[in-house]
Amino acid sequence: MQALLFDGQLRLANAYPEPILAPGEALIRPTLVGICNTDIEITRGYMGFQGVLGHEFVGVVQDCEDRAWVGRRVVGEINAACRRCVVCARGDEHHCPERTTLGIDRRDGVMAELFSLPIACLHEVPASVSDQAAVFTEPLAAALEILEQSHVRPTDRVAVVGDGKLGLLCAQVLRLPGCEVVVIGHHPERWGLLHELGIATADERRTMNDESDEPFVVHRSSFDIVVDCTGQPAGLAVARSLVRPRGRLVLKSTFAADSGLNLSKLVVDEVQLLGSRCGPFAPALRLLERGLINVQPLVAGQFSLKQGIDAFAAASRHLKILLEIAHVD
Amino acid sequence: MQALLFDGQLRLANAYPEPILAPGEALIRPTLVGICNTDIEITRGYMGFQGVLGHEFVGVVQDCEDRAWVGRRVVGEINAACRRCVVCARGDEHHCPERTTLGIDRRDGVMAELFSLPIACLHEVPASVSDQAAVFTEPLAAALEILEQSHVRPTDRVAVVGDGKLGLLCAQVLRLPGCEVVVIGHHPERWGLLHELGIATADERRTMNDESDEPFVVHRSSFDIVVDCTGQPAGLAVARSLVRPRGRLVLKSTFAADSGLNLSKLVVDEVQLLGSRCGPFAPALRLLERGLINVQPLVAGQFSLKQGIDAFAAASRHLKILLEIAHVD
Repeated sequence: MQALLFDGQLRLANAYPEPILAPGEALIRPTLVGICNTDIEITRGYMGFQGVLGHEFVGVVQDCEDRAWVGRRVVGEINAACRRCVVCARGDEHHCPERTTLGIDRRDGVMAELFSLPIACLHEVPASVSDQAAVFTEPLAAALEILEQSHVRPTDRVAVVGDGKLGLLCAQVLRLPGCEVVVIGHHPERWGLLHELGIATADERRTMNDESDEPFVVHRSSFDIVVDCTGQPAGLAVARSLVRPRGRLVLKSTFAADSGLNLSKLVVDEVQLLGSRCGPFAPALRLLERGLINVQPLVAGQFSLKQGIDAFAAASRHLKILLEIAHVD
Repeated sequence: MQALLFDGQLRLANAYPEPILAPGEALIRPTLVGICNTDIEITRGYMGFQGVLGHEFVGVVQDCEDRAWVGRRVVGEINAACRRCVVCARGDEHHCPERTTLGIDRRDGVMAELFSLPIACLHEVPASVSDQAAVFTEPLAAALEILEQSHVRPTDRVAVVGDGKLGLLCAQVLRLPGCEVVVIGHHPERWGLLHELGIATADERRTMNDESDEPFVVHRSSFDIVVDCTGQPAGLAVARSLVRPRGRLVLKSTFAADSGLNLSKLVVDEVQLLGSRCGPFAPALRLLERGLINVQPLVAGQFSLKQGIDAFAAASRHLKILLEIAHVD
C-alpha cells in the first residue's frame, strides 16, 4: 500500500506492507488525516520514531473481530495502552508506561491506506459532524485537556501565546467557561476568526511595553492563566512573563531546546507549571456536534497522500494541512 | 547596636545604627532568631542583598504608634507590602511587586538588637507556645503553604526529598491530612523524629533501584505528590523521577544553579510543577499551640549573636541553629 513514512528522511512508499488484523484491534481506512506539529518534529528527530507518520484521522473501520464496528466512521485515541499494568488499573491509560502511540512511538501511524488501532481507542463520529470537522477531534481533545486537568474559573483572565493551529483551538476552548481570552501571536492574517468569536488579540512584538500609548497593551504579570502553544523558548519566555504571581502556566507543546526557565523565580512567584498533552475524545466530539468550536477557518489546504512531501512543507508554514487518502475499491 | 550583617562578607558590627520608628511600623527586640538556608544563600550572593541578615524570629514589641502592641511577644510575616497596588488590593500582599522582605530584599533583618517591621505583619504568640517553638512559625508557615496552595488528599502518597530543616517540617505538615509520607534523604541520624511520628524514610542512595532486595524500596513514578526540599539539581532530579504521570512536584526551595529539568517530559507526563514559598502564620501558630508539630528535635544548637559567624558555619552542616539575642536593659 501507499504510505508516508519517516526512516531518517520523509519518504513516500508505494509498496509498504499492509497491517494484519491483531486481536483486540481494528483495521481502519483513513479518509482524511491532519498534519500536526509533532509530525513535523518527528521528521527532525523527535522521539526517534521511524515508521508511518500521522495520528490525526477520521476513517472507516474495514475489519475487526467485533463485527459491529465494521463500516462505522470513527476517530481514535492515539495511546494504545497495555490495560494490564497498575497505571491502566487506575484508569490512566494515556500514561501507561507500556503504551505505544500512533505514529509517534513504536506504532505505525495513519498516513497510509490502512492502519491498525485497538478497538478500545475508537469513537464513532456523530452523523452531523463532517469529516473535515471530525479530523480535528484529536487536537481539540488536547486543547480540552486544559479544562480536564485544572479548574478554569469564568472570572479568570487567560492568555494564549501562539496563534498556530493549537493556539487557535485552545483559545476557543478556554472561551467556553466564559473567560476573557487574549491570543498573543505574530500572524495577524489569522486573527479574523478570533475577532469574530470575540477573542482579543495582541501582537507578540508589541506586548511587554507598559509605557506604550497603544490602545490595547498586554501587561506583564497580569494573567491568571497563560497557555504556551509556541513550543519555542522565546514563546515560553513571553508566556512566563505574562503570568501573575500564584498564576498558572500551561505547557501545551513539547520542547526540543533547553527552556531557560528560571525555577527560583517560579518559587518566589509561586507559579504553577502544568504539562498538558492528550485529552478526552467524547466531549470533543460533543462540542463539534453542537457547533461550539469553529475548525473550518483553521484549514489551510488539502493534499493527496501522493503529495505528502509537499504537504509537509506547506504544514510548516501554514495552519492545518489535511491529507486526503484515496481508496481504489 | 550589635548586628550580624552581610556587606560582601558576613560580619558582626558593634555600632550599627538603630532603626527609627516609622509610621505603621513597630520596633521589635528579637529574643530568638533562626538561621535559614536562605540566609546562608544570601552570604553566597543570592538576591544581591546587603544589610542585617535574618527573617525567622520571636521577639517583643518595644515601640509602636498603636500602644496596644507594646510589650507583646510576637512573630512576624516577612513581606512588607505597599498595601496600595492592584496585587495588594486582591489580598495577595505576599506577592506585592513593591514589597520589601525582611533580611532578604531592601529591608534590614532580625539578627540585631532591634529591627522594624509593619504592624500588619505581626502575630501575637499564644502564651503556651515557647520561644523555642515560636521561632519556627515562619518556616512552619512556609511548609503549610503546600496545603494552602493545592489539594492534598488523605489518600495521596507523598514523598519529601531532603531531610533538612524544611524537609522535616514539610513531612510533618503533609502527614496532617492523613497522607502516607516518605522522607528521602541521606542523614539517617536525623530520622529518629520521623520514625517516632510514623513517617517512613529511605536513603537517597538506595532509591531508584527497582531490582533491589531491600525490604523498603522507593519506586520511580509512584508518588502522587513529591516535594523537593533540597534546592539542588541532583535532588530535583530524584524528586522528578518519583512523580507519577499526572502527579505534582512541589518546589520548596530556590535554585542558584540551572535545573536541567526536561520540559518535554513534563508535558508528556502531564506533571504539575508548583512553586511554593511563604505561608500563613495564623494556622502555623494554631498547630504549634495544639502541639501537632514537633520542632524541638530540629534544634541543633544555640549561639549568642556575638558568635554569629560560628553559628553560620554550624548552620551549613547541621539542622536548625538558633541565635539568642541578649538585651542589656
